[in-house]
Parts: sequence; C-alpha cells; structure tokens
Amino acid sequence: MSGDHGLRSSIPASLKALREFPRLRLHLVGNRAEIQQALDADDDQRLTIEHSDSVIPMAANVRTVLRSRPLGSSMAKSLDLLKQGVVSGVVSAGNTAALMTLAKRSVGMRPGFSRPALCSAVPTTTGECHMLDLGANVDSRPARLLEFAMMGTALARTLRPQTPARVALLSNGSEASKGNRQVRRARKLLESSPLINFCGFIEADQIQQGQADVVVCDGFTGNIALKAMEGTGRYLREQLQSLQAGSGVSSAKLLRWMNPNRYNGAFLLGLNGVVVKSHGGSDAEGFLTAIRQALQCMKNPGMFSSAGE
Amino acid sequence: MSGDHGLRSSIPASLKALREFPRLRLHLVGNRAEIQQALDADDDQRLTIEHSDSVIPMAANVRTVLRSRPLGSSMAKSLDLLKQGVVSGVVSAGNTAALMTLAKRSVGMRPGFSRPALCSAVPTTTGECHMLDLGANVDSRPARLLEFAMMGTALARTLRPQTPARVALLSNGSEASKGNRQVRRARKLLESSPLINFCGFIEADQIQQGQADVVVCDGFTGNIALKAMEGTGRYLREQLQSLQAGSGVSSAKLLRWMNPNRYNGAFLLGLNGVVVKSHGGSDAEGFLTAIRQALQCMKNPGMFSSAGE
Repeated sequence: MSGDHGLRSSIPASLKALREFPRLRLHLVGNRAEIQQALDADDDQRLTIEHSDSVIPMAANVRTVLRSRPLGSSMAKSLDLLKQGVVSGVVSAGNTAALMTLAKRSVGMRPGFSRPALCSAVPTTTGECHMLDLGANVDSRPARLLEFAMMGTALARTLRPQTPARVALLSNGSEASKGNRQVRRARKLLESSPLINFCGFIEADQIQQGQADVVVCDGFTGNIALKAMEGTGRYLREQLQSLQAGSGVSSAKLLRWMNPNRYNGAFLLGLNGVVVKSHGGSDAEGFLTAIRQALQCMKNPGMFSSAGE
Repeated sequence: MSGDHGLRSSIPASLKALREFPRLRLHLVGNRAEIQQALDADDDQRLTIEHSDSVIPMAANVRTVLRSRPLGSSMAKSLDLLKQGVVSGVVSAGNTAALMTLAKRSVGMRPGFSRPALCSAVPTTTGECHMLDLGANVDSRPARLLEFAMMGTALARTLRPQTPARVALLSNGSEASKGNRQVRRARKLLESSPLINFCGFIEADQIQQGQADVVVCDGFTGNIALKAMEGTGRYLREQLQSLQAGSGVSSAKLLRWMNPNRYNGAFLLGLNGVVVKSHGGSDAEGFLTAIRQALQCMKNPGMFSSAGE
C-alpha cells in the first residue's frame, strides 16, 4: 500500500467501504505488521491481509522498477491476486507508470488494444463524462485515438447501460476545419467507425456542460486539460477561502467575485502596434477590461512599434 | 464595432473608460448614426466617431472575408488608423481570425516574427501570468514556440519592467523526460536561448500557483488549457449559484462543496481486469471514492474480462 499518505488514507477508506457495502470483501496488500497496527482491534471477517515485503517508490522510474524485479512488492502482489481471480478489482494510489506496466504484464490487454489508457470522470451539469487518455500515451497516432473512443464507449456502457455513449474528440473549435493535423485525421477515423456514437469535436469549455459522455484526446492534451480544470478548482477554492477568512463575507459576494469579466482581452503579439482582442461575448465590464489592457501596453510602447526600438 | 453584443457593450465601456482615464481619447469606428444614437446626448470632446459602412460577420471564414474586400469595414478602418498613427492602439470584439489577418496586413509584423500570437493573462495566487499561443497557431514547430517565448518576455517587460519574466513551457510533467516530441525539442531551444529566462516545464495545475510569468504552448494546447480553465470557472459558479439559490446556504458550505476529493480514481482501460488508480495525494475520502469507482465496474464486468465476453 503506497501513495503519498500510505495507510493513513487507505485504511480508514477501507473500513468505511466495508460499512458502506455489506457484501464487499477486501484484501489489503502490504506490510502485515503495519496494517495490523493501523487496523487496531478491528477483526472484520471480510478483511484479509496479504503480506508483501516491499513497496514500489512513488517517484521511481519504470525501467528502474522493472530491473529491480518488483515481484515481492504490494503492487505486483495485488495484480497477481487479480490475475488469479482471487479478487475482482485492484485499487492503488501508487506509482502510475509502474501500475500501468505491471498491470499490462500481469493481467494482460484485451484483444485489439495495445496499451492501457488512463480515464477519469469529470463532473458535468448533467452528471459526469469520462475523459481519456490522461497521460499514459503522450504521442498518440489517430488509430490510438480510435482505440480510446472504443475503450471509453465500453466503460460508459458498463457504468450507464441505459443510453449509448456520445463520444467527442477534444479540439480547439467545434467546426470540422478546426484542430491540429492529428485530431483532423482522427476525426475521419471516428466518423467512419460503426462501433462508436461520434458527435464531433468538443471544446474544453463545453466538457462540463454535459455535451458528451466520452471525451477522447491524446495523453499530453488530456493531462493538460484535466490539470487545468483541477488547478482552477483549487485556485478558486483557495481564493474564496481567503476572501471568506478575511471578513466572513457572504456566499453572494463569493459568487460575484467569480465574475468571468474580471479577465478579458487577449493581446495580438508580434505586430507593429497594440491590438487587443476582447471576447466576442463580453459585456461592458469585460470590454472595459480589454481597453485597460490596451492602455497598459500603450504606456510603454517600446515592444509594440518598430519606431520605438 | 462588432462582437456578440455590438454597441451595447462597447459604448458603455468607452464612456466608463473616458471617466477612468482623464487623458484618454477614443475613436469609435462603426456606423455613425447608430453610434450617435447609442451615445445619446453625450458630446465628449475626447470622443471621435469614425464612420464605416460595414462590419465583418463574427462567424465569417477568413478567406471569404478577404475575398469580399473588407476595406470599408470597421475592423479594417480601425487598423488603418493605427497604421497611420492616428491612434496608438486598437481594441476589437470582432472575428478573431479576421483581426489577426487584417492586422498583419495592415500594421505588419515586427522583424523576426512570422505571424501574430494570441496571448492572455491568467490570474495566479501572486498576480497574473501570460499564456501564449491560444489558438492562432495550431500546429507550431519548436522554433515557433521559441518565438512565443520571446514575444511573451517582451510583453512581460512592458507590463512589469521591474522583474525579468520567468518563462515556462506547458507540459504533462515537470521532469525533462516528460512532454511530447514537440515540447521536448522546444525545451532544448528555450534552454539554450540567451534572450529568455527559461525555468523548465510547467504542469497545467501549477499555472495559477504563480510559478511562471509567461507560459508557452502551441495554439491547440493553449486553447484547450485556457478553455478548460474558463469552463471550470463557469461550471463551479453555476453549481454554486444553484446550491445557494436552493437553500440560501452559507459561504462555508459552498467551499466545502468544492472539495477536490469528491472526484478521484482513474480507470486503467483496455486491461483484462478492473484496475483503478487513486490520486497519490488523496486522503481517506478520496481513496474511498476510488474504491466506489472500482465496485461500480465490478458489478458489470463484461468489458473488463475476456471471460465475461
């Protein structure tokens, strides 16, 4: 049992899960003495400790991990239990790259798929959607994006069997003319596949509006999109907490503070002059922000005009 | 004067800007009669109306725009005023692609730069940072990313002359081994340039933590990162508003609702079994969420095991 918090997060979570799911049986894989101590006097019959001698370090490089023969590690041991059919699923907070490699070696891939993809749920106004890949496959050819679309469709069918999953491809615009070379080629593959219900390109600000059930992207783009979402959530939470701590402000004031018009106005850089693009949908307050941006640059025109050099 | 709201946003913003900046002079470019009507009885000596016959449609394709000889449009006319030195800056809420193309044709590029880049401020815990490109240059070679780094450095020097800008390259991890082929090659270029103060890769969830002043990426990735941030801000605001509307909840409760542990657990898809990766840093609540995710899939194991097919 690894992860940054080790047993301090996995043991309490396991005990809660046993209370929440009366038919659940859990196998805890790790150092037996440490687990027994963390469990205290608990002797739940539905809980089995599987001893392992070592833990794969969180920051270890996959190649180093494989060279060190990780068979005795808690991660390898839990995957082995899955392979043998002793357990029906594995949850790990350990080293992601090691988990992907050891899982592929141990339980193997399903026919037609070359490597595991990382897929997470993202909350939407209508429920949730699933995004993949999120970092396991950084340079993905269009054919891999089609694999992701099929994996996501299968996952969505498992989680929500009632409705066929709408699959979208993450891009910088919804029109077919948008996208980089990779997603334009992938779009054609996804459009012509009878196995998926493709609904076109999706922009990153539409994901949480519930317009798709599965969002497909390469691991580089997906990792950046997901972390941009997580980072914004964390940033807003921290800012709102400090606003609230300062003066005990009302929830209404917190919401006013989150006004998107506080940031507007993109610079067109590299030109011989100051040109600022205001968001097409901005109101008067947003447009005023864009004017202020232009004025800030005009104060010091050195970089914006050849004459100023 | 274009944009989705036309004069309804630009005129009130202009009048507020004149009050805020006593030495500002504004040239409003658009239909004279409509602008006069919107201005009402205002006869500010610092406000000049420049008549134009037409407006470039928001959704128009750039090629169509250029074929239709857009010289009489408000956008072309304002860029012409900039070229002639009548004004020192242009703010437009119009068609982005048309603005980039017409600006390049009219005022031209600074030496060494091939095409304009779109650059926006992103709020951070310590102030703001500037991200570019945001969609103008979708397929960017490493040499273009170096251009963006130089443009961003020059902008930051104009806005914050006191401190040299720290430039980071957006990637899916901070280690040099991370990144796709494009950013790994660009990293070498940026590292060896004496003109920029390069501080390595930055992950998308670190942008708002204030670790860089300029964040460089290609237009595809930047557009997705920025829209992921905007979409999350909008989503959270909408959800908090509906929470507040329902029961008039306190600001403390709104903040509790924004707990990042409500979403945790990534699926490793394509394997012959259920494997769920919990976030390394998640607490007990987050780990429990990951266990719940695994259980959801185990209920319907069809897609996860060859035996189930």
